[in-house]
Amino acid sequence: VQTSWTLGQIAVLAGGQLQGDPGIVIRGIAPLQTARPGDLTWVTSAHFAKLLAHSEASAALIGPDLSAGDLPVVVCPHPDRSLARVLSAMEPPVPHPPPGVDPRAIVPEDVTLGEDVAIGPLAVIGSRVRIGARTRIHAGVFIGPEVEIGPDCVIWPQAVIRERCVLGARVVLHPHATIGADGFGYNFIDGHYERIPQIGRVRIEDDVEVGANSCIDRAKCGETVIGRGSKIDNLVQIGHNCKLGPHTCLAAQVGIAGSATLGSHALFGGKVGVRDNLVIGDRVQVAACTCLAEDVPDDSVRIGVPGIDKMQFLRELGALRRLPETTRLVRILLKRVEQLEAADHKTTR
Amino acid sequence: VQTSWTLGQIAVLAGGQLQGDPGIVIRGIAPLQTARPGDLTWVTSAHFAKLLAHSEASAALIGPDLSAGDLPVVVCPHPDRSLARVLSAMEPPVPHPPPGVDPRAIVPEDVTLGEDVAIGPLAVIGSRVRIGARTRIHAGVFIGPEVEIGPDCVIWPQAVIRERCVLGARVVLHPHATIGADGFGYNFIDGHYERIPQIGRVRIEDDVEVGANSCIDRAKCGETVIGRGSKIDNLVQIGHNCKLGPHTCLAAQVGIAGSATLGSHALFGGKVGVRDNLVIGDRVQVAACTCLAEDVPDDSVRIGVPGIDKMQFLRELGALRRLPETTRLVRILLKRVEQLEAADHKTTR
Amino acid sequence: VQTSWTLGQIAVLAGGQLQGDPGIVIRGIAPLQTARPGDLTWVTSAHFAKLLAHSEASAALIGPDLSAGDLPVVVCPHPDRSLARVLSAMEPPVPHPPPGVDPRAIVPEDVTLGEDVAIGPLAVIGSRVRIGARTRIHAGVFIGPEVEIGPDCVIWPQAVIRERCVLGARVVLHPHATIGADGFGYNFIDGHYERIPQIGRVRIEDDVEVGANSCIDRAKCGETVIGRGSKIDNLVQIGHNCKLGPHTCLAAQVGIAGSATLGSHALFGGKVGVRDNLVIGDRVQVAACTCLAEDVPDDSVRIGVPGIDKMQFLRELGALRRLPETTRLVRILLKRVEQLEAADHKTTR
Repeated sequence: VQTSWTLGQIAVLAGGQLQGDPGIVIRGIAPLQTARPGDLTWVTSAHFAKLLAHSEASAALIGPDLSAGDLPVVVCPHPDRSLARVLSAMEPPVPHPPPGVDPRAIVPEDVTLGEDVAIGPLAVIGSRVRIGARTRIHAGVFIGPEVEIGPDCVIWPQAVIRERCVLGARVVLHPHATIGADGFGYNFIDGHYERIPQIGRVRIEDDVEVGANSCIDRAKCGETVIGRGSKIDNLVQIGHNCKLGPHTCLAAQVGIAGSATLGSHALFGGKVGVRDNLVIGDRVQVAACTCLAEDVPDDSVRIGVPGIDKMQFLRELGALRRLPETTRLVRILLKRVEQLEAADHKTTR
Repeated sequence: VQTSWTLGQIAVLAGGQLQGDPGIVIRGIAPLQTARPGDLTWVTSAHFAKLLAHSEASAALIGPDLSAGDLPVVVCPHPDRSLARVLSAMEPPVPHPPPGVDPRAIVPEDVTLGEDVAIGPLAVIGSRVRIGARTRIHAGVFIGPEVEIGPDCVIWPQAVIRERCVLGARVVLHPHATIGADGFGYNFIDGHYERIPQIGRVRIEDDVEVGANSCIDRAKCGETVIGRGSKIDNLVQIGHNCKLGPHTCLAAQVGIAGSATLGSHALFGGKVGVRDNLVIGDRVQVAACTCLAEDVPDDSVRIGVPGIDKMQFLRELGALRRLPETTRLVRILLKRVEQLEAADHKTTR
Repeated sequence: VQTSWTLGQIAVLAGGQLQGDPGIVIRGIAPLQTARPGDLTWVTSAHFAKLLAHSEASAALIGPDLSAGDLPVVVCPHPDRSLARVLSAMEPPVPHPPPGVDPRAIVPEDVTLGEDVAIGPLAVIGSRVRIGARTRIHAGVFIGPEVEIGPDCVIWPQAVIRERCVLGARVVLHPHATIGADGFGYNFIDGHYERIPQIGRVRIEDDVEVGANSCIDRAKCGETVIGRGSKIDNLVQIGHNCKLGPHTCLAAQVGIAGSATLGSHALFGGKVGVRDNLVIGDRVQVAACTCLAEDVPDDSVRIGVPGIDKMQFLRELGALRRLPETTRLVRILLKRVEQLEAADHKTTR
């Protein structure tokens, strides 16, 4: 494992232009506030570039229009992408179970395993499960019967995938993710709830990531679908029969109620809630803590409880901030109008 | 496993009246939007009934006052209940561990197991645990010492039940549910928090369902109680010493703080929050994303942050939507009143 | 295990002054509403003290200025602290795995275990893990390679700690806690998301408690830090690179987005959300369901969506409650001003 790099090597990794001594030795990478001598850091805005003067970092990745004073820098057209490449080079090996089936895993005879599948200890695999090449199943994962998993997936420890669900290629499930638990559906009959069977499944398309302790419920019938390339953070709830378009991005603690549909490239902040059966368009952006209660057309930006157009929200918020003063003014106006009316009465009598 | 049904058989299952060819073959069931030839679908409102004309479904369950054009239908007095019966008939077998104790489970000698209890591999059962007849404990479940579980329960993989908790009959715990973790209680003394022991337990009554990754904390002393027939969705938090009445229904990501009491038949949308120590009456309905900060009497409907009466909320929301215009109007009125006052001053001088 | 105490013994445990018969036998402890004969209860406010007359409890711990009628009481200067001491004395033994490594645990040769470490069955420990003296690792816990855990910790069943994370002394992780999953970071390039490697770790300082099903993500680089003495409830999300100061207290379902910084002694109600990169000062108090969107200075109290100063919030809320009436009044004023203007026009013509 490489543990130091010259700044010249960093510039090549980053795909940027070096300004400074290429021989400077870099041993790690750290955010601006905590960088120490030997560390590379990065800034992407003029605000933070000013703080570089006070940083102990030995060098920085910076955007093309930023200045870093005397600090050696690598100027990058896309510093965020350059940062990802440098992080990737510096990443210590991520521990996965080695290819093969750990003898302490529980794997029935009738499973189909692709080349170099890795299954860790105490994983429990159901009958007729199919797992694609190079997929790594960590310790303690539970996979129900007839689940299909594509190649190059990573299933982190203690994730659960219930029967018949389907995962595409390069899917990542983080610890304690729950895929395919029963949808939440009951009929209320004679004062009590009767369960509606949830006989469908979950289908997760290629390149999806599902965060730790997140839940995606199986469909009442048919499929709950997570579109390809979607990224789902921790503690997110996706109800039964939801359809997420490709490349949706949901931050932590989002909740999508049953049968809601999200278009492609939806971008939701943390804790957003979506009512059941809504239809949300493509490229919709929703601010954190918003609660959507109505359908949303393509290319909209929503915020608030209930969620409304952002511009309208900001106008209302400004007016709300002045509301105590406005209310006081209305009371004063009432008195002044009463005085005018009294005077008017006298004048015209 | 039966994989096709005639529409005549479906009508019998559904308990409805057939309008169309009883020999039509049904191979599956699907929501209106995704139904294909061979599928049965269902509609329960006039809005969706109109869309049946564009559906590829071969037949539909419909409510008594709906029209479906030429499509063969089964007219049902309660289409939701009929749907549940048809789903139940079409449900593939749900995989549970077979009756008996898997040799790879960890089950001490002193447990008491009812008839046909099923315990899956790698389940860990504590001392003096009692489990009722036909209850199925899936792989990887943890059950602490002296837990009591009634008959006909299903504990899905990797649920955790800590020591001394009690579950009634027909209780379902979904994956990663956590029952009986310590309540969140500390005394703040001299600048730091000191733990208050949480020596009580959780008692879950008959016919309760607890969703995936939901948490019900044990009581500081006495019991946290989930009343019979209650249904709790995923990622829900129930704090220590809460008492939920029978037949409460909590959607995903609800959070109930410590020592709150909910009456019977409470119906909460997703993400509702309830402050500690509140008393919520019977048959209270709370809209999604509401934050309750006060006691709520029986039969109330609450919405908002903080939650208020729904009618009042709608009045305020309407006024809030017009607030920017109202604020502008107040400023204009001020000027016009000033002009009137100036004119009045001239007139009366 | 002791199962009864005299009220005299209770008074000594509580450190309070007995008023009543020291020989009264106490067999348990219960909240006011559910206490039965033989139970001790407690009250800390005049409101609840009034209800003691209707309680079946045999005795009560009460605060110094409260009256309990005829009920035998132990008057305590700090009844909450006294209650904790009595609960501690009455607490049944908490079941932990016995010291030593369970033969069914998976523990490689190269781990370093302190004195009397306890590792339960089916725990999976990674290479080069170091665990301090007397720490108890419950069944089914997963600990990745090179994790360091201090002495006297308790890791409850099925918690997951990924590689290289560090826990101090006396840390408690509740079931299904996920420590060190990847931070949620992507670059959006050409219509899809590319993962940013998350190469840092999580560092949890001494005396921290992390609730059931809570998630603390590893840093993009460097560390996500939970300051000493902090208490985190269930279902909480802490994003990558967050820094929590010492003695922060976060109630259930709080979510802190990436790179946010909290000062010492922050006290957050349930469901609070914090935007990424914010700086929250020391001793900040935030009401439940608040969504912070701006930095917060020391000693502030915030409430609302978005969160604002509490006094301002209460003024706005009062005005909002009257807003429908205020709006109606403005419309009436408009008409009356129009009439005055018409009259004025006539008069001055």
